[in-house]
Amino acid sequence: MLSSLLPVTVQFGDCDPAGIVYYPNFYRWFDNASHKLAEEAGLGLRALQAQGYIGLPLAQTGATYLRPALFGDRIVVHSEVRGFEAKRFRVEHRILRDDTVLVEGFEVRFLGMRHPHDPMRVRAVELDEAFRQRFA
Amino acid sequence: MLSSLLPVTVQFGDCDPAGIVYYPNFYRWFDNASHKLAEEAGLGLRALQAQGYIGLPLAQTGATYLRPALFGDRIVVHSEVRGFEAKRFRVEHRILRDDTVLVEGFEVRFLGMRHPHDPMRVRAVELDEAFRQRFA
Amino acid sequence: MLSSLLPVTVQFGDCDPAGIVYYPNFYRWFDNASHKLAEEAGLGLRALQAQGYIGLPLAQTGATYLRPALFGDRIVVHSEVRGFEAKRFRVEHRILRDDTVLVEGFEVRFLGMRHPHDPMRVRAVELDEAFRQRFA
Amino acid sequence: MLSSLLPVTVQFGDCDPAGIVYYPNFYRWFDNASHKLAEEAGLGLRALQAQGYIGLPLAQTGATYLRPALFGDRIVVHSEVRGFEAKRFRVEHRILRDDTVLVEGFEVRFLGMRHPHDPMRVRAVELDEAFRQRFA
Repeated sequence: MLSSLLPVTVQFGDCDPAGIVYYPNFYRWFDNASHKLAEEAGLGLRALQAQGYIGLPLAQTGATYLRPALFGDRIVVHSEVRGFEAKRFRVEHRILRDDTVLVEGFEVRFLGMRHPHDPMRVRAVELDEAFRQRFA
Repeated sequence: MLSSLLPVTVQFGDCDPAGIVYYPNFYRWFDNASHKLAEEAGLGLRALQAQGYIGLPLAQTGATYLRPALFGDRIVVHSEVRGFEAKRFRVEHRILRDDTVLVEGFEVRFLGMRHPHDPMRVRAVELDEAFRQRFA
Repeated sequence: MLSSLLPVTVQFGDCDPAGIVYYPNFYRWFDNASHKLAEEAGLGLRALQAQGYIGLPLAQTGATYLRPALFGDRIVVHSEVRGFEAKRFRVEHRILRDDTVLVEGFEVRFLGMRHPHDPMRVRAVELDEAFRQRFA
Repeated sequence: MLSSLLPVTVQFGDCDPAGIVYYPNFYRWFDNASHKLAEEAGLGLRALQAQGYIGLPLAQTGATYLRPALFGDRIVVHSEVRGFEAKRFRVEHRILRDDTVLVEGFEVRFLGMRHPHDPMRVRAVELDEAFRQRFA
């Protein structure tokens, strides 16, 4: 299973008045990690756009917060694709500080193509075996 | 059921190179909406801290993206508390542009108190009837 | 002189562990305010793009922090264009809470057009009298 | 002269609908770089707070944008302290991609202490020779 590791140092401005990471930032890091994973799979944004796709838009996301992350923490986002549907796939993320899991989350994404008759609409493309193998 | 409405105008800087709202911003708006709802329930951060609590930290969040939001869109976050457990409650959010639902999401939160022997730890407090009635 | 007023309620997530607005957010509000001012001048992004421009990119920005803004503060960004050069103009911003000035800042912007021979480059266009009159 | 180098990979979510870095993010990276420089000078936030200070708040900031930064760019923030006044010092930042300067900026900061009679106010402390030597 292809997996990526994205190291992040928690910055002062990532934290809120409670002194811990403001939670939308965890999703920012999930998104960064998915871009890195897609790049490593040969499906980075530029590669996809060169083939006429718009990218890998989001259908659903979620996260469970187990322990807070603090200013200065060196954390790592571990990401891999687990589970494909006909037109969707699920990226699972875990954020760790050393061996401690701080956050578990996921993103459900699809391979998006501009609608042929309406440029404002995006449609999900069937995920073929070649696409799936990229993340294997 | 107490509910709150938070109007948001989508800003240029809220959008990404795809020209649509960068998804972590929806969680930022969920958080803003929950602060507003708590304030309206008499459970705003200052009121809670005056009673010795640290606030209403997050246990879990999630969102489903139905349609994109664009620069200049005037959207509204509709929020209400639906469902209590012994030590947790669930805030449900829907983001609409006119009558169209763009995003559906939720936050599971708890009433947090500093651990008596370890200031770095936060523990969840039992939610009593008075707390629940605030959101009724 | 055309001026715009952008009201902002300071959110929890706009603040840092010091409990005050994290300063890059003031620039986010400056940018939001400039988009509003341009819109009111008939020079919003869509109007400009319909005429072949890319928008009003930044050449320079700056800010002086006089007093902090806190979670829950209702502040207003006052903005107007003061000073034109051949190819640049200066937007001045003041952020007030009631009658107290918290932040003073500026943005120097230009009217940008895609370079005819290199789509990656942007060039500044001469600002004609019609453009200037829009902000008068 | 003590200087710090902060490498940054430009993320998708750092960019706006124009496809380039949304400018307030450059200030976020200036702030991150100043925290790193202060840490390397032995004046990190925890060290300062252990001595009764609140940190190194901002008095003024500014930036000049020479060339845009794009998604995927690997950039570096070069930072050093240049110039002390009695109660203020100036951090100068340059953001480079390879040998090309993209942004030049500065932050004027002070050493802040809680006002003895009013916890909401912060006062600037005289910068002694020991403080200055830390950045030499």
